[in-house]
Amino acid sequence: MEYDHIGHGVGRVDGWEKVTGEAKFLRDFSIAGMLYGKILRSPYPHARIVCIDTKKARALPGVKAVITADETPKIKFGFVPQLADKLPLAIDKVRYIGDEIAAIAALDEEIAEEALSLIDVEYEELPAVFEVEEAIRPDAPKIHGNETNIAFKIFRRFGDVEEGFAKSDDIFVDRYSTHRVTHCCLETRGCIAFFAKSGKITVWSTTQTPYGMRNELSRILGIPPSQIRIRKTHVGGGFGSRLVMDMNEPIATLLSKYTGRPVAIFNTREDEFHYSANRYPFMVELKTGVKKDGTLVARKATVLVDNGAYNERGTSTLANAASSFIYLYRTRHIYFEGSLVYTNNLHGSAFRGFGNPQITFAMECQMDRISEKLGIDPAEIRLKNIFNSGEETASGAVIRGSGLYESIKRAVRESGWSVRRGERTSENIGTGMAITIHTGGGVRSYKYNAADAFINVHEDGKATVLVGVSEQGQGATTVLTQIVAEETGIPLSDITISQTDTDINPVDSGCFGSRSTYVLGNAVRSGAIDVKKQMLATSAEVLKANSSDLEMKFGSIYVKGSVAPSLSAKDAIQAHYGKGRPLSGRGRFVDEIPELDAVSGYGSFFPAYSYSCTIATVQVNPDNGNVDVLELVSANDLGKILNPLGAEGQVEGSLLQGLGYAFFEEVRMRNGQITNGSFLDYNLPTALELCPIKVVLLECSEDSGPYGAKGIGESPLVSVAPAIANAIYDAIGVRLNDLPFKKENILSLQKKKGQKPKG
Amino acid sequence: MEYDHIGHGVGRVDGWEKVTGEAKFLRDFSIAGMLYGKILRSPYPHARIVCIDTKKARALPGVKAVITADETPKIKFGFVPQLADKLPLAIDKVRYIGDEIAAIAALDEEIAEEALSLIDVEYEELPAVFEVEEAIRPDAPKIHGNETNIAFKIFRRFGDVEEGFAKSDDIFVDRYSTHRVTHCCLETRGCIAFFAKSGKITVWSTTQTPYGMRNELSRILGIPPSQIRIRKTHVGGGFGSRLVMDMNEPIATLLSKYTGRPVAIFNTREDEFHYSANRYPFMVELKTGVKKDGTLVARKATVLVDNGAYNERGTSTLANAASSFIYLYRTRHIYFEGSLVYTNNLHGSAFRGFGNPQITFAMECQMDRISEKLGIDPAEIRLKNIFNSGEETASGAVIRGSGLYESIKRAVRESGWSVRRGERTSENIGTGMAITIHTGGGVRSYKYNAADAFINVHEDGKATVLVGVSEQGQGATTVLTQIVAEETGIPLSDITISQTDTDINPVDSGCFGSRSTYVLGNAVRSGAIDVKKQMLATSAEVLKANSSDLEMKFGSIYVKGSVAPSLSAKDAIQAHYGKGRPLSGRGRFVDEIPELDAVSGYGSFFPAYSYSCTIATVQVNPDNGNVDVLELVSANDLGKILNPLGAEGQVEGSLLQGLGYAFFEEVRMRNGQITNGSFLDYNLPTALELCPIKVVLLECSEDSGPYGAKGIGESPLVSVAPAIANAIYDAIGVRLNDLPFKKENILSLQKKKGQKPKG
Repeated sequence: MEYDHIGHGVGRVDGWEKVTGEAKFLRDFSIAGMLYGKILRSPYPHARIVCIDTKKARALPGVKAVITADETPKIKFGFVPQLADKLPLAIDKVRYIGDEIAAIAALDEEIAEEALSLIDVEYEELPAVFEVEEAIRPDAPKIHGNETNIAFKIFRRFGDVEEGFAKSDDIFVDRYSTHRVTHCCLETRGCIAFFAKSGKITVWSTTQTPYGMRNELSRILGIPPSQIRIRKTHVGGGFGSRLVMDMNEPIATLLSKYTGRPVAIFNTREDEFHYSANRYPFMVELKTGVKKDGTLVARKATVLVDNGAYNERGTSTLANAASSFIYLYRTRHIYFEGSLVYTNNLHGSAFRGFGNPQITFAMECQMDRISEKLGIDPAEIRLKNIFNSGEETASGAVIRGSGLYESIKRAVRESGWSVRRGERTSENIGTGMAITIHTGGGVRSYKYNAADAFINVHEDGKATVLVGVSEQGQGATTVLTQIVAEETGIPLSDITISQTDTDINPVDSGCFGSRSTYVLGNAVRSGAIDVKKQMLATSAEVLKANSSDLEMKFGSIYVKGSVAPSLSAKDAIQAHYGKGRPLSGRGRFVDEIPELDAVSGYGSFFPAYSYSCTIATVQVNPDNGNVDVLELVSANDLGKILNPLGAEGQVEGSLLQGLGYAFFEEVRMRNGQITNGSFLDYNLPTALELCPIKVVLLECSEDSGPYGAKGIGESPLVSVAPAIANAIYDAIGVRLNDLPFKKENILSLQKKKGQKPKG
Repeated sequence: MEYDHIGHGVGRVDGWEKVTGEAKFLRDFSIAGMLYGKILRSPYPHARIVCIDTKKARALPGVKAVITADETPKIKFGFVPQLADKLPLAIDKVRYIGDEIAAIAALDEEIAEEALSLIDVEYEELPAVFEVEEAIRPDAPKIHGNETNIAFKIFRRFGDVEEGFAKSDDIFVDRYSTHRVTHCCLETRGCIAFFAKSGKITVWSTTQTPYGMRNELSRILGIPPSQIRIRKTHVGGGFGSRLVMDMNEPIATLLSKYTGRPVAIFNTREDEFHYSANRYPFMVELKTGVKKDGTLVARKATVLVDNGAYNERGTSTLANAASSFIYLYRTRHIYFEGSLVYTNNLHGSAFRGFGNPQITFAMECQMDRISEKLGIDPAEIRLKNIFNSGEETASGAVIRGSGLYESIKRAVRESGWSVRRGERTSENIGTGMAITIHTGGGVRSYKYNAADAFINVHEDGKATVLVGVSEQGQGATTVLTQIVAEETGIPLSDITISQTDTDINPVDSGCFGSRSTYVLGNAVRSGAIDVKKQMLATSAEVLKANSSDLEMKFGSIYVKGSVAPSLSAKDAIQAHYGKGRPLSGRGRFVDEIPELDAVSGYGSFFPAYSYSCTIATVQVNPDNGNVDVLELVSANDLGKILNPLGAEGQVEGSLLQGLGYAFFEEVRMRNGQITNGSFLDYNLPTALELCPIKVVLLECSEDSGPYGAKGIGESPLVSVAPAIANAIYDAIGVRLNDLPFKKENILSLQKKKGQKPKG
């Protein structure tokens, strides 16, 4: 099928306004009477609050409100309501360095800062715990006063894993650990809240999930969702960091309530590093039973997650990790046990990949060890064990539209795998592989994975689309624009996707789980088809033809089979209005997959799947532990590529973020204190750190996606780190089971290598 | 049919925010960086501009831009493009006291005012003309340099009027004149315009027709409509005055273009009186031929309209007057000739009734004279000549849903007509009658009379409606809210109608022609039914029932025939979301009546009709000419009354405005200069001037209206003045053929009365 716009590279439709500075980001907003809010945070990782004295702060000229927990509804919040544990302002106790205690609204940020310094808080320090293994000990300080520090446990048990191990020819047991990284969005997080006297609350926010935030703010304030209006602004990066409300929003809203004026809270870069959540660190014990021929028989993962001081998206991160664990390879006996463990650290949150980079690191590093031990090529053993489309996992999920086989084959070909692999040269060059399965169409969040879209077509032939899209820079609006152009013949430049406002746009769950192209693309496409039908009907009247004999292509209406257009799209629209008819369309997509059983995890979690295979080639300097990545080959089945330019950007960004995860980035902590909280100290890779990359985009169609497309946002990142670990092993024979890969670890492992046999 | 909300009196849904001041009107807006615009206007009614020197004004600190015609695209504007004659800023010539010459944008209004005084304009005065009769003389100064000052002529010729007169038993010829009144909206007009560097223009405006304004601004600036975004604010009264763009919007937009900042232009009250358009003054020569039995045979109206210096809504005012002329009484031979005549006065515009108050004044005063002459009761002669539903006028319009017969009958009964009429008591008390036919569903404007509506239903059971409604205080949003509540079971307080924004809301032609309830009501109702269907479908799943066995009433879903509700509306909505489905509805109404032939006027102009009968009882003091209105009985067929409270308010407001038109209000001019341009001098009637009134609301259903409703906004006003004129005649035997009714005229007519026979 040939398309006019789909599959053609299109530059960002929001590029011009962003490049010229015309695009208004939150910091550009100034609302009449706006005050500035600042938050007093705990300097202790664990302490009792003895008393708070705000008298001096209140007396400071320019201070309009000072609030503590007494001015809040004292309702605990949790993404999962049953696990609610976070108050907007702490009562009695603080649990991490950064816990919110009091807040100020003042005429400017300087006055607010000064007022913070005038609040006297008397603390009584409590013993704190920072390591997961310590936190689960019976004698550890109990952070939330519960019996244990285990906030939540997830179990996924299919088949009989012990029976599986018993039937296996070989058993592999390894321990892996992943570290703490942060999102590093170039725009810091913020909000402006206005609590009107009518009770209506408007919050301008940098969120990725406007409707989710409405729900969350509703719960923490005890106010119905529809009384709250979330207006998404342009967003300068998200990566999952803006997926769940932080306390800025309820605090700004309460400050607005008490002052009667709009209140802005803008994170500084320091706030962002110190108080904005991290990727959850995992400790994984992985046990795998295999047959001699390489068939996986049984697999068990025991995962401990550093939850930090409060629950956030840990449960869904574990649920997603469990899915990846179960869906990557055909394994009849499988068992996943994950525990979220409270510590006095900064809490974790969603981050591109959502638990998958952590669990896949473990799975794919071990797979390399298995393949070596069994003497089977790493590509072969993977091809043998992956699912085919239509196969059902042990957990009852039906794997759909799989292009993983082709991804592996293609990565092997593009990388010269068969030549490079295993030929450990004197230059210490090695090549390694890892694969990924990930959702390509979101998951149900707050019950649904669905969207509506409204399209208004104006009299001059242009269109405005109302859809709950959460553009954060990833290019979703460009893809949606292409879809409208494709169906209606309206030129790209004449289509506007309106900024999401929960009072205006139809509902959508937000930007996460690689769902925008799939879910919103389907919704917008059906709305655009609705518009097209009306255009064709009017054209049929004008042309005295049958509507079914007409088609839309090249921006015009053609009688089928004819080479000359009969009417331009614009003419058809104007003829439609000329007949006294308005032109609008309504589209809808509902993910009809039955909801996963929340306790057992039985059923399908994803409506569509994306697949990647990464092959890394590295050169290691054994003298100093330096690793030079010579090439990353990333072959991805992302379904039909709607915008190659955008898709390449997504994959390249993913690979660089994957490289950062492997080598560069790490939030370092000492006793709950982040010690490298600035861009100077936090080693974010830049273009200079990017290695040569080769991106292959395969288009194994997903029938349920728009034009066969599926999500693209996360999958390529996931397998970068394990591919590099496996390449390093291939180069110098040491296995790196802990992220990130540090020179000193490589050197010390190399030293040990002489002492014990490899594998 | 019993309804839960329809037909029940509901207080304004926007009442709370307006009463508390929470509602933001345009003057409450402050946009970051906003400048203030002021306009330099001609002090002469007709002059050549010799030169404009803006140097001193430009040099004044705080002035950010000074523009003259050179900075404009010099495109002439007219509501009807073929009659375009108005530039945003004058070139060469000014044509009335107030013509726009130059404009300033400055940091505040005081600086802008000062800068205006620093602009030197050299004028060369030209002979001017202020009276219509003078303006049509061949030797009159030609205001637009055309051959004549006749801007436009309309002809409506059906049957053979001369043949009709020849067949008549009696011929009546009379001349009537109506005067100039202004709208007196309590909020003055204004706009804030922002011309972004991307070329996108946003205008916050007090308009009644956001989509019309987008179109108009597009034409005068030569920019596509969709590049322009009109955002309606709350509007404090319209009455037709905000139906067509004035020059504030293009001027503010151009000032914004040259400054790069938002520019506000707010009319002062003085601006509003002096430069905001008036109701068109008509001079009507009316000739009617009748049979002895009172049957109207032929009728001819020759109308001269003071157009003022520029074309505005004069053509549609004449077209509407012609329709009323043709549709009120069954007359086979009918002829209407109307001329719009340029003068050097302030131009006219739309005003509640739209030409109908003027022509009906003539028709209904003469009808009283005919009835007297023939000795037929005024009610009887009207009942004899009005159309029945389904009858076709001479012009091919099919009269629909007429309750005019019932209105007359009911007004007669309520007023004690048969007792009062004709019994001229010693107290000089008299009773008079007049009737009205008016559109009850708008007309096509810019080609269409249609609307779409989108309804978003939120997870907590509340709803937001996107519809192009132009609430100007008349209560349309309340009625639309009732409709959504009626269909969906969602409580009134849980429904929000969003403020119209042309980039967001689906298209609508705006608020005029009594169309909001009819057109938008139909569109919103169909959208709400779309929502209801989805709610019933989900409820059917929940209840394991057939959707067709369920019904929505009392805010709940019932199994038909059951007395106990099965599910509340909110439960049904939450069940729907619980099943992973979003909930939204789309509605549409298209007026399918074929467009009227623009030249001949053949065909139907209105999709629905509203009807009124006014009976006035007055007491006249023959010594001083004072008229005391003892009672107004107003019987109206407005179709099904959706909100009795709102309907009564509309009718009462109409009657007071009708009283103002008859007695109190007049824009007085001397040589093109308005001499009473303030509330102190302009005699706007207040509650103190209101006479006792008796309002009857009849509900003769209009099948095509929502629940049988039709428009209510204009009809009752129209027949007030002629009913009073006829009552004055009944009281003291003098016929007032000129509006307004002045004591001195009554006295002088009384003096003449002795000299010639009555009738």
